[in-house]
Amino acid sequence: MEMDQAFISALHDGLGLDEVFVDEGTRSTYGHDETEDLSFPPDVVVRPRSAEAVQRVMRLCHEYRIPVTPIGGRTGLSGGALCVHGGVGLALDRMDRILEIDEKNLQVTVEPGVITQVLQEAVAAKGLYYPPDPSSRGSCTIGGNLAENAGGPRALKYGVTRDFVLNLQVVLPSGDMIWTGANTLKNSTGYDLTRLLVGSEGTLGVITKAVLRLIPLPQLDRLMLVPFSDARRACEAVSAVFRSGVTPSALEFMERDAIDWTLRFIGQVQVPVGDDVKAHLLVEVDGNDEGAVMQDCEVILRVMDEHGAGEVLFAENASEKDALWLLRRKVGEAVKSRSIYKEEDTVVPRYRLPDLLEGVKTIGARYGFQSVCYGHAGDGNLHVNIVKGELSDHAWEHELPKAIREIFQLTVGLGGTLSGEHGIGSVQRAYMDIAFDAVQLDLMRRIRKAFDPYGIMNPGKVLPE
Amino acid sequence: MEMDQAFISALHDGLGLDEVFVDEGTRSTYGHDETEDLSFPPDVVVRPRSAEAVQRVMRLCHEYRIPVTPIGGRTGLSGGALCVHGGVGLALDRMDRILEIDEKNLQVTVEPGVITQVLQEAVAAKGLYYPPDPSSRGSCTIGGNLAENAGGPRALKYGVTRDFVLNLQVVLPSGDMIWTGANTLKNSTGYDLTRLLVGSEGTLGVITKAVLRLIPLPQLDRLMLVPFSDARRACEAVSAVFRSGVTPSALEFMERDAIDWTLRFIGQVQVPVGDDVKAHLLVEVDGNDEGAVMQDCEVILRVMDEHGAGEVLFAENASEKDALWLLRRKVGEAVKSRSIYKEEDTVVPRYRLPDLLEGVKTIGARYGFQSVCYGHAGDGNLHVNIVKGELSDHAWEHELPKAIREIFQLTVGLGGTLSGEHGIGSVQRAYMDIAFDAVQLDLMRRIRKAFDPYGIMNPGKVLPE
Repeated sequence: MEMDQAFISALHDGLGLDEVFVDEGTRSTYGHDETEDLSFPPDVVVRPRSAEAVQRVMRLCHEYRIPVTPIGGRTGLSGGALCVHGGVGLALDRMDRILEIDEKNLQVTVEPGVITQVLQEAVAAKGLYYPPDPSSRGSCTIGGNLAENAGGPRALKYGVTRDFVLNLQVVLPSGDMIWTGANTLKNSTGYDLTRLLVGSEGTLGVITKAVLRLIPLPQLDRLMLVPFSDARRACEAVSAVFRSGVTPSALEFMERDAIDWTLRFIGQVQVPVGDDVKAHLLVEVDGNDEGAVMQDCEVILRVMDEHGAGEVLFAENASEKDALWLLRRKVGEAVKSRSIYKEEDTVVPRYRLPDLLEGVKTIGARYGFQSVCYGHAGDGNLHVNIVKGELSDHAWEHELPKAIREIFQLTVGLGGTLSGEHGIGSVQRAYMDIAFDAVQLDLMRRIRKAFDPYGIMNPGKVLPE
Repeated sequence: MEMDQAFISALHDGLGLDEVFVDEGTRSTYGHDETEDLSFPPDVVVRPRSAEAVQRVMRLCHEYRIPVTPIGGRTGLSGGALCVHGGVGLALDRMDRILEIDEKNLQVTVEPGVITQVLQEAVAAKGLYYPPDPSSRGSCTIGGNLAENAGGPRALKYGVTRDFVLNLQVVLPSGDMIWTGANTLKNSTGYDLTRLLVGSEGTLGVITKAVLRLIPLPQLDRLMLVPFSDARRACEAVSAVFRSGVTPSALEFMERDAIDWTLRFIGQVQVPVGDDVKAHLLVEVDGNDEGAVMQDCEVILRVMDEHGAGEVLFAENASEKDALWLLRRKVGEAVKSRSIYKEEDTVVPRYRLPDLLEGVKTIGARYGFQSVCYGHAGDGNLHVNIVKGELSDHAWEHELPKAIREIFQLTVGLGGTLSGEHGIGSVQRAYMDIAFDAVQLDLMRRIRKAFDPYGIMNPGKVLPE
């Protein structure tokens, strides 16, 4: 796409000199996220410092009918922030202020560019807790978390990003600014625009402020790594834990390859892994009462034992906990470091997890690809990392999409869907017909059009052509 | 409105003989809910037995452009189920089956006409818990709870109806049927149609099935009634409880009049109330560990004491708990039994509750009306029951709306909004301009139109003319 010079001039007139970039370096930087090895540089990068500047950008894009793609921490895994139609890359990274931590109402108001971990640490210093914690929390932003409805391990007990949003300030494609709701815990006043925006992947508007709910920070936690010689039985143990009446604060699954590759990738962490181990569960329990937490741990240990678990490794102190969490959080990077790969973010009802895992392996065997599976087992959310390895380029380009289609068909057949927390973005939208029929997709298109009549907001995302 | 006879004949042809009613008795029965003393009988009542029958009704209404109002348990307090434009009253009361309690995945699939308490008891028998519990839970339905995004006391710890919905089967105004999501705990796949439908008050489609999330049933709870000689300090104690790190399972507020009137109304319950008592908090803590629950109670008692509470009454057994909960749940009926009244469902950030209460009383004094205030203090959700009492009909009709407008302006000024859990329906929609500007309302209208191009779904509700 050839960029309209009048548009570029208007951008320069409407924004600060150091807010508009057309140099190749900046365009290249903002042209990729963590999705495979894809790169789609915008024609121009805008890095505004205020919601009002975002309004000016949107008004111009609306007037000139220029595509706009909001860009957060560029840690996305579905290509939601890739400028697949060029146009403006609207980077929110400079709008990174925590505007108010309201300790009286247990709320926090932030700009979209705040790094998730920075927010978590700022509120923890006041004894408060913001639970959503994607693996990329050290570099992903709240704006991106809102756009993709991000989860992470603690979503299991506390909920995903959607469950912690009270109110959003949004610049619409027209340039108008709205608040979506109110700063209240309950709200039955008009349509729930707040939760319509969450997970809409930047296709309905640009989030410029968010009011988030906080909870008291739990005072203690226990973390254990549980080995299994049978991956299916590990998955079966997951739903048994919940049936026992205990709700852990995290319940993660890792296949043998995931832990081996990650141990090698990060180097400094030592975890003894027996030869017969095929999978691990990483289980965390939190609370405020030592007795209650220990009682929960005992129930969990009994359930694990009943499902054939091996010797459980308890983290004895903060640094051992950090090491185990590092191990879990680095799996994605470890896989990526070894080979070109694709990551599918499958999700099913919790009890169907063993069937999903088995089905993925069967499909892999048929198509001849290797996969490494891990993820938020307590939520039924399994990340399937498909490794290119020895596969030919032809098979990777032309055969693999058929295999992925089969994986998603299996997922939907098990009562699940395409994405639990990564979103659809650009790379999964060709599969949306598996989860939705024409009536559903048409309804979503009409909703999108109600926000964006000219189709300028993050075109080429979420909904298929 | 004169009903098209061809339409009535087509309804008769398309549905069972005993599913279509035009007699005055049935129309009158389905012409009111619990909203004030309002009555808006539909021209025809349809009571289908299946989602397919609902589709046939909607296709005909779509073809003939007939207004349709879905009707649940008729316990609504904002007139959401009133047929203000006549047309079809679509009563879902016969679709009242619990289709599956899925103990393996902790999910339940229900039809919309299931009574909330019936569902709660059915899942409790299997050790599971569905927390949303409106005061009317003995007669309200899940469909109505979904339409209004109902809450109740346990919303405080566990969340409102919205937070327990995984997936909805919906018949659209066109008669097409869709599922809104998937039966999974996490979902980032396309727009969140599920939560757009929840709280849309029957204006976007007819919910014909719901898949709801369940949690393990807490094994024990403690309930206490805490008297205060100062209503403001009672409200102040509420946010202090959360700052102490404890999350009670309920934290309810009742003004002195609320408890006095309700004790007289229900008769059999005895609660000693000292002369100087101005308000009560009803506080419940639940959990699985006796020690942890008692520890929480001790923290709460300390906070209450610091805020000048009087002698705390602990419920000693199940029947004392039932009596205290009956007292709380019957406040609305007790007020209604004494006088014509209007109920406003104000909600503010929790810490602003004392300011809201004080402001309501000031406005009442200025306009000369009496109000009884009570509600879900932990959520900042205060029900303001305005009693007609000695007010003239003229003042009730013409002056009171100005006072209500002032109450809502106060609410919004405190960071709150019009309704926490009752919805807007027909009686509050004239106040929507206080919470939303023209841009927001126009956006909501376009979303509505994306679902319902001919404006047949529950017209006259939620959005102002």
